[in-house]
Amino acid sequence: MLDGLREPVRLAAGLTPDRHLDSDAQQRALDALSKFAERLRGLPREAVRAVGTNSLRVAKNAADFIPQAEHVLGFPIEVIAGIEEARLIYLGVAHGLPQSPDNRLVMDIGGGSTEFIIGNNLEPQKLESLYMGCVSYSSRYFPNGKITKQNLKQAELAARNELQTIAKEFSCKHWNVALGSSGSARVLCDILELNGYSKSGITRDGLERLREELLDAGDVQRLDVQGLKPDRIPVLPGGFAIMYATFCELGIDQMQPALGALREGVLYDLWGRFHHHDMREVTVQRFMHRYHVDMVQAGRVAKLAHTFALQFLGEDADETALQVLDWAARLHEIGISVAHSGFHKHTAYILKNADMPGFSKKEQARLSLLALAQRGSLDKLEGQLKDIEDYVLAMSLRLAVLFYRNRSDGGLPALRGRFSGTKFHLAIDADWLAQSPLTETALQEEEKQWKSQGMSMQVVAK
Amino acid sequence: MLDGLREPVRLAAGLTPDRHLDSDAQQRALDALSKFAERLRGLPREAVRAVGTNSLRVAKNAADFIPQAEHVLGFPIEVIAGIEEARLIYLGVAHGLPQSPDNRLVMDIGGGSTEFIIGNNLEPQKLESLYMGCVSYSSRYFPNGKITKQNLKQAELAARNELQTIAKEFSCKHWNVALGSSGSARVLCDILELNGYSKSGITRDGLERLREELLDAGDVQRLDVQGLKPDRIPVLPGGFAIMYATFCELGIDQMQPALGALREGVLYDLWGRFHHHDMREVTVQRFMHRYHVDMVQAGRVAKLAHTFALQFLGEDADETALQVLDWAARLHEIGISVAHSGFHKHTAYILKNADMPGFSKKEQARLSLLALAQRGSLDKLEGQLKDIEDYVLAMSLRLAVLFYRNRSDGGLPALRGRFSGTKFHLAIDADWLAQSPLTETALQEEEKQWKSQGMSMQVVAK
Repeated sequence: MLDGLREPVRLAAGLTPDRHLDSDAQQRALDALSKFAERLRGLPREAVRAVGTNSLRVAKNAADFIPQAEHVLGFPIEVIAGIEEARLIYLGVAHGLPQSPDNRLVMDIGGGSTEFIIGNNLEPQKLESLYMGCVSYSSRYFPNGKITKQNLKQAELAARNELQTIAKEFSCKHWNVALGSSGSARVLCDILELNGYSKSGITRDGLERLREELLDAGDVQRLDVQGLKPDRIPVLPGGFAIMYATFCELGIDQMQPALGALREGVLYDLWGRFHHHDMREVTVQRFMHRYHVDMVQAGRVAKLAHTFALQFLGEDADETALQVLDWAARLHEIGISVAHSGFHKHTAYILKNADMPGFSKKEQARLSLLALAQRGSLDKLEGQLKDIEDYVLAMSLRLAVLFYRNRSDGGLPALRGRFSGTKFHLAIDADWLAQSPLTETALQEEEKQWKSQGMSMQVVAK
Repeated sequence: MLDGLREPVRLAAGLTPDRHLDSDAQQRALDALSKFAERLRGLPREAVRAVGTNSLRVAKNAADFIPQAEHVLGFPIEVIAGIEEARLIYLGVAHGLPQSPDNRLVMDIGGGSTEFIIGNNLEPQKLESLYMGCVSYSSRYFPNGKITKQNLKQAELAARNELQTIAKEFSCKHWNVALGSSGSARVLCDILELNGYSKSGITRDGLERLREELLDAGDVQRLDVQGLKPDRIPVLPGGFAIMYATFCELGIDQMQPALGALREGVLYDLWGRFHHHDMREVTVQRFMHRYHVDMVQAGRVAKLAHTFALQFLGEDADETALQVLDWAARLHEIGISVAHSGFHKHTAYILKNADMPGFSKKEQARLSLLALAQRGSLDKLEGQLKDIEDYVLAMSLRLAVLFYRNRSDGGLPALRGRFSGTKFHLAIDADWLAQSPLTETALQEEEKQWKSQGMSMQVVAK
């Protein structure tokens, strides 16, 4: 790493009980982002990746806040799912470790969520994200830093309750070494080692000792131990309760701090995208397989959709957009696995909700919308197609699906698409069209659909 | 068959363009149902099965109409999905045929939908339901029975357009004999044979001959052929166009009429339920397999939920309700296949939308609701739990899930449930509860949840 910049914002502390991000937290975040913006100025878009995690996943006003944040930062912000966060954390941790036959447990206590991963070398094998974090737990169970027997017990119980569903799958039977990758793990390790509560790393006995000290102090501000940096003080009790509960529920004896976590994982993942190792591509292939996609049909539709998009967009065609179109085309029929009837809706549901390693929530939402737009009325999109690019991608996919409705190769004439402003043109060989009444009818319906959206689409037989 | 009663109602003719069932059609249906009600009076509920098909699937006011219809009939009415209709039609047709190595195509032109099945002996292999029928096509393309070159062509094109997506999978390459099971097929066969347009069954040449006659007549009322019964006249042109288009698209040369269809299929299916051959049970097992359900956990939860339901309902426990609870419990985790996060919602989505052979739409909706109710806030159910039985089933499933959150056998104390009016009681061994703070916390949360729904749930340590 050449340079690192860190601004603790603690968004999770600004989450109201009804899950809105309060204005203070929003302002803290925007201030921090404006500092990053200065440093990032001039970098190409594809070299920067900004990710949001739990607080932006759960905040009900995230959709209002994120555009502001993106505006200040000058780059898009991807909100990633908990499972994706876990995958990236593991990637970050694993790249900092030597090859080893060990199965590793990696735990990362974040502000509002905690991720658990079991993996081997660079491969994560089990991924989980639980809704508990050092910021949210500290403010919920230890207001003003007060620590009592009762509230400590409550926080630990709440954490154990969260852990219960994963306890069996992540118990010490399934791994050889435990690693903690977050600030909480590092500070706990420092405290335990520097004060002689443990010889090395976080241990169960050490945690018991610190627990006594916390209860004796009665207030985290009064805790007098070595290794506790001032900025970690407010989030220590919550982080402690989660760590303590995890040791109990998973049967951990010792945990070592790990270098690297989410940030490093995001970088390795980005690096992979440039070097033919894009996790998203792997996921698309796995989904095609898992949902028994008709590969030949998906391939045809993807190829023709790509051709249309190039014709419509010309030299301005954005690589990212073409990539999204390709993924959407290859996955557009996965919903058939649920039911034939209305399968495009089922495809859209899966793409929106499934765990899709490598994809951000926004990318999944875009794939989902394209899948929904693949056929039928455009009214159902309720204006979610926002910009020209989205319209072009939807049109390209719809036309490709339309021309391959018979699921057979061959027989397609030369097709020449053109797009300007709000007008689509499609030139087709007149003889072929005269002999293809089904396609002609379908294209007429298509013209009507686009007209109803205030766009124009014109088929010209030549 | 001892006795048959038939009342042609033609609901599809009463579907308005915006898919509402008009009041005339509703009245026709209620009149017919009142006749059936008289005949069915006194029969036990489990001996009667009333099913609704396409018109009730698509009518937007079906939810208002069905309760009236059920009231008049005195028995519940199941609306079944198109694919389920296809399965039952095949069952009805196949039971009327001898064993044979042939692959069969079965086509059934209904009022508003047409089903296609390829099967072998009693096993359907491919099932499809298309949104076109003799009633809807006759009224849409041939108002007042007028037949012109143009409207006939339009109707045929519309049907071919529908057929295009299944043409490859159902083409003549995939079967040896074609059978038509509906009134449309039988009347077309009669006309063709009696007038010498074909020697046997429906043939392509015969259809061409009849097509000429239809165009010459210009009006179905003026068509002067043998074999056309008066009640089939108004729906002949639509049925003809669909049959003609199907012959073209699937490459059929000859089709024989089949005895038996939906009604017989429904009876055989009902008979199977009494003789340990319930298609619904087969589907549940297939789904558990397809969605990689943790069988041991599902089994535990199902067993405990059953115990609770028996305790709550006592001797009044309804077999059907217990059966539904068992299925819901065994399927409650299928949504994990989409994503861990919010999996109960994904389970509910799949159960509501998937093709589930043997299940009616209403049964699927009930399973879906129970799956959604398995954990978390009860507010999200938005009052869909309607009667006491639903509440009891939901409670039984929730408690079973709660007690097995750790996914392990053993360690459960004696649990004694009781229910009266709106009050649930649960007695638990006091020592066990004192040593199980996680469960205690979860049960306290459960008490809160039910209180918010105007119910009471009380845990008593004994």
